Amino acid sequence: MLNKKRAVQIVIFGGNGDLTWRKLVPALYNLFIAGALPEKYCIICVDYVAMKEPAFRKKLRDGIDQFSRTGKTKKRDWARFESSIHYLAGDFNNPACFAALGKHLNAQQKTWKQRASRVFYFAVSPRFIETIADGLHTHAIASVANLDRLVIEKPFGTDYQTAHSLNRFLLKRFAEKQLYRIDHYLGKETVQNILAFRFANSVFEPLWNKEHIDHIQISVSETVSIGKRGGYYDGSGAMKDMIQNHLMQLLCVTAMDCPHRYEAETIRDAKLQVLKKIRPFKNSNDLILGQYTAGTLNGVAQQAYRKEDNIKRGSRTETFAALKLFIDNEKWKGVPFFLRTGKCLPRQSSTIIIQFKKSKHPIFSDDITPNQLVISVQPEQEISLLFESKVPGLQMKLKAVEMDFTYKDSYTEPIPEAYEALLLDVMEGDATLFMRADQVEQAWKIMTPLLDAVKSENHKLHFYKAGSWGPQASRELLKPFANNWFSLPDPAIK
Amino acid sequence: MLNKKRAVQIVIFGGNGDLTWRKLVPALYNLFIAGALPEKYCIICVDYVAMKEPAFRKKLRDGIDQFSRTGKTKKRDWARFESSIHYLAGDFNNPACFAALGKHLNAQQKTWKQRASRVFYFAVSPRFIETIADGLHTHAIASVANLDRLVIEKPFGTDYQTAHSLNRFLLKRFAEKQLYRIDHYLGKETVQNILAFRFANSVFEPLWNKEHIDHIQISVSETVSIGKRGGYYDGSGAMKDMIQNHLMQLLCVTAMDCPHRYEAETIRDAKLQVLKKIRPFKNSNDLILGQYTAGTLNGVAQQAYRKEDNIKRGSRTETFAALKLFIDNEKWKGVPFFLRTGKCLPRQSSTIIIQFKKSKHPIFSDDITPNQLVISVQPEQEISLLFESKVPGLQMKLKAVEMDFTYKDSYTEPIPEAYEALLLDVMEGDATLFMRADQVEQAWKIMTPLLDAVKSENHKLHFYKAGSWGPQASRELLKPFANNWFSLPDPAIK
Repeated sequence: MLNKKRAVQIVIFGGNGDLTWRKLVPALYNLFIAGALPEKYCIICVDYVAMKEPAFRKKLRDGIDQFSRTGKTKKRDWARFESSIHYLAGDFNNPACFAALGKHLNAQQKTWKQRASRVFYFAVSPRFIETIADGLHTHAIASVANLDRLVIEKPFGTDYQTAHSLNRFLLKRFAEKQLYRIDHYLGKETVQNILAFRFANSVFEPLWNKEHIDHIQISVSETVSIGKRGGYYDGSGAMKDMIQNHLMQLLCVTAMDCPHRYEAETIRDAKLQVLKKIRPFKNSNDLILGQYTAGTLNGVAQQAYRKEDNIKRGSRTETFAALKLFIDNEKWKGVPFFLRTGKCLPRQSSTIIIQFKKSKHPIFSDDITPNQLVISVQPEQEISLLFESKVPGLQMKLKAVEMDFTYKDSYTEPIPEAYEALLLDVMEGDATLFMRADQVEQAWKIMTPLLDAVKSENHKLHFYKAGSWGPQASRELLKPFANNWFSLPDPAIK
Repeated sequence: MLNKKRAVQIVIFGGNGDLTWRKLVPALYNLFIAGALPEKYCIICVDYVAMKEPAFRKKLRDGIDQFSRTGKTKKRDWARFESSIHYLAGDFNNPACFAALGKHLNAQQKTWKQRASRVFYFAVSPRFIETIADGLHTHAIASVANLDRLVIEKPFGTDYQTAHSLNRFLLKRFAEKQLYRIDHYLGKETVQNILAFRFANSVFEPLWNKEHIDHIQISVSETVSIGKRGGYYDGSGAMKDMIQNHLMQLLCVTAMDCPHRYEAETIRDAKLQVLKKIRPFKNSNDLILGQYTAGTLNGVAQQAYRKEDNIKRGSRTETFAALKLFIDNEKWKGVPFFLRTGKCLPRQSSTIIIQFKKSKHPIFSDDITPNQLVISVQPEQEISLLFESKVPGLQMKLKAVEMDFTYKDSYTEPIPEAYEALLLDVMEGDATLFMRADQVEQAWKIMTPLLDAVKSENHKLHFYKAGSWGPQASRELLKPFANNWFSLPDPAIK
């Protein structure tokens, strides 16, 4: 629980950027109106552009009004909240920027008569991480290991070597416990609920292993194109942008053993054990890459990836990746995990599918649908179990039906945004949902040989129409375990 | 599947009685409009009272209009159906009755040019069973073992000795495969579905044993009083009227092992094995009996049982029974099964509760609700799983929520009445859902020492107000496994 008596200073580098505007400040505002912030706090946004504070605050308010899950700001709430927001123009490459910041922070906490806890949020391009970290270190701005924390956005490195170097660089200047490598997927309610679902119940965990599970699908499909992110995305691609972080993390919560205690280090240890046991890739045979071409996405024309802004001519960057992997431990030996992600797909959806083996009691026809547990992270947060049931009528006919649980129907409590949960965790000093150095490096360790193989083998790039479910080859990858990827029913049909 | 080319003659003894009027003829009518009856059929109702056929048919039509799940008869359908209904007045004690019946049946089948299959439904007081069976035998009316079947309503005997004698009597005259001892509970969709649920799915059966299950509750609660049935009921009581048959059968489908094949004999063998392994009762310590006193039932005043019609003065007949028993086999050793039934309880409901043990992973607070699988047979046919889930919000708080499956939401197919399914099964010669001689006797073998103990020990009779959930002692019986019987939420609340 948060110690509300401890003041907090939240510094956002890239404070004039998109993430701050759309996600971070709306999240902080929601924490504020929920009464979850400490009694004393301030938010200092640091960015390159010169801006007057009133105009800057107005911009943030517009962001909240547009993007906050709680709707438009109320006048009185906003008046109280905005007085805590400050803007500091500065060039991260210029030491004067950190001198000014340090001065500001010290002056602020003097009025509070206590050393505040400090949260430094790196909402910046990765190329600034080392510069800013060094600035903080040199100016001794984040020097109290128990109070000061750095939140680092993905991508954390671009391969094993760069991630390892970046960790070394940071760990020379800060303690591991000060470093919060964020993967906002882990802040989502359903992802957090997977641990509760698996370990607070006695009916799932006994089935959660190779004896009972046939295969697992983890799929994150996006309808969006790369839009304005071409400059960044073309140098990254789906493997680095999604698979290495979000999907690996979903894999970890799905496959991990139960930790001995519910606390940051034991949970992160258990996740690391999963990553360590992933069978190393010797080639890229079990990887399907795709890139979208022109198509129609939910009725709207979409241009080809190669025609988007800031994309290199003839780019071979993948916007779709599907992957088969194995975890070589006692629990999972022989059970394939299929991971898939892509842009310009027909629907926005993140789902984990646990496909069970068929019943061992062949007293009914063999033609029965195996049980399937569907954990839906978005758009709807829900869990459902597909099972065989007798169709009402005078004969014993079976049909697969669903047992459903939806957040919407079960809770009146609002679902916080991932960034709300994660920002509060940082303030509390709870690193459970953040990535430890060894986790990040291990995830890269798995990916790097695969990415190397792709390059050296000149791996095939499949083209798929925007608005389709990606290359046919990604369905072939599933065989003989499944004929197609699980997909939620069309909203219009449901 | 039914051979529709084989004509069928359905003879109902007690054809002018309540069961025929409310249940059997509406069920036959629904089979008729569903096109499920053979091409050639007739229904011959035999009873004591003299009645003209047109008046009798009109009475049956009124019954269908009132009680059929498909609503009022349509003129054209009824015209076709009623031409197959015949009424035969006769005294079962008079051989002339059977001579007339035999003549009628033979004349009828002569016009069809085939030996029809014959179904003799005993919708009569148990005291007539032997008389009628003997009449059929003496007059060789049900003499083709492959075609002729007797359907015997409960109660089948009043203890082990009488059930055994009755079986001997019947089996001297007919083959076991001709005898269909009916327990209409087994014809209910949800009860039939329990086998599909357990054995066509792979996710429940591995948990279905003493390792994972804490205890099981089987409860059939009725809102009705004994009404006009006092004459019969006062000599019987809840133990013989409900526990020995319906609840024992629900126990069997819940606890049985998976049969090798889905067919009548293997399924009935598996059920018999459950009954055989019930730990014999040495005394009546684990039995709570109750009788309702005056009270208010859903807003309506209800008189005490002892004030009802045809009840002996100071009657000690139980209208409520709760019972703990154990099944001493590998699967269930040490798992208590709690059975409960009663009249004048606050709601009509038949449910089977599988209460699982708590999670073996104590990483969350110990204060978690164990998983519970609720199989609801009536009023709603549904299955739900209670499980722990994270409450949306910024902390890891758990709450028990439900995953639901309801027939109503999952199927457009209408749910047939139990009697429809069972009558069709008799015509098909499928005895799966009927009780074999050894099953009935075994169920009595368990009950008889208990009933004897009740008598000889002058077992305490608890009084409970009509409209309450029965004696407090029935809740004590559950301890330490549970504090109270599971009950569905109040419909007004839900």
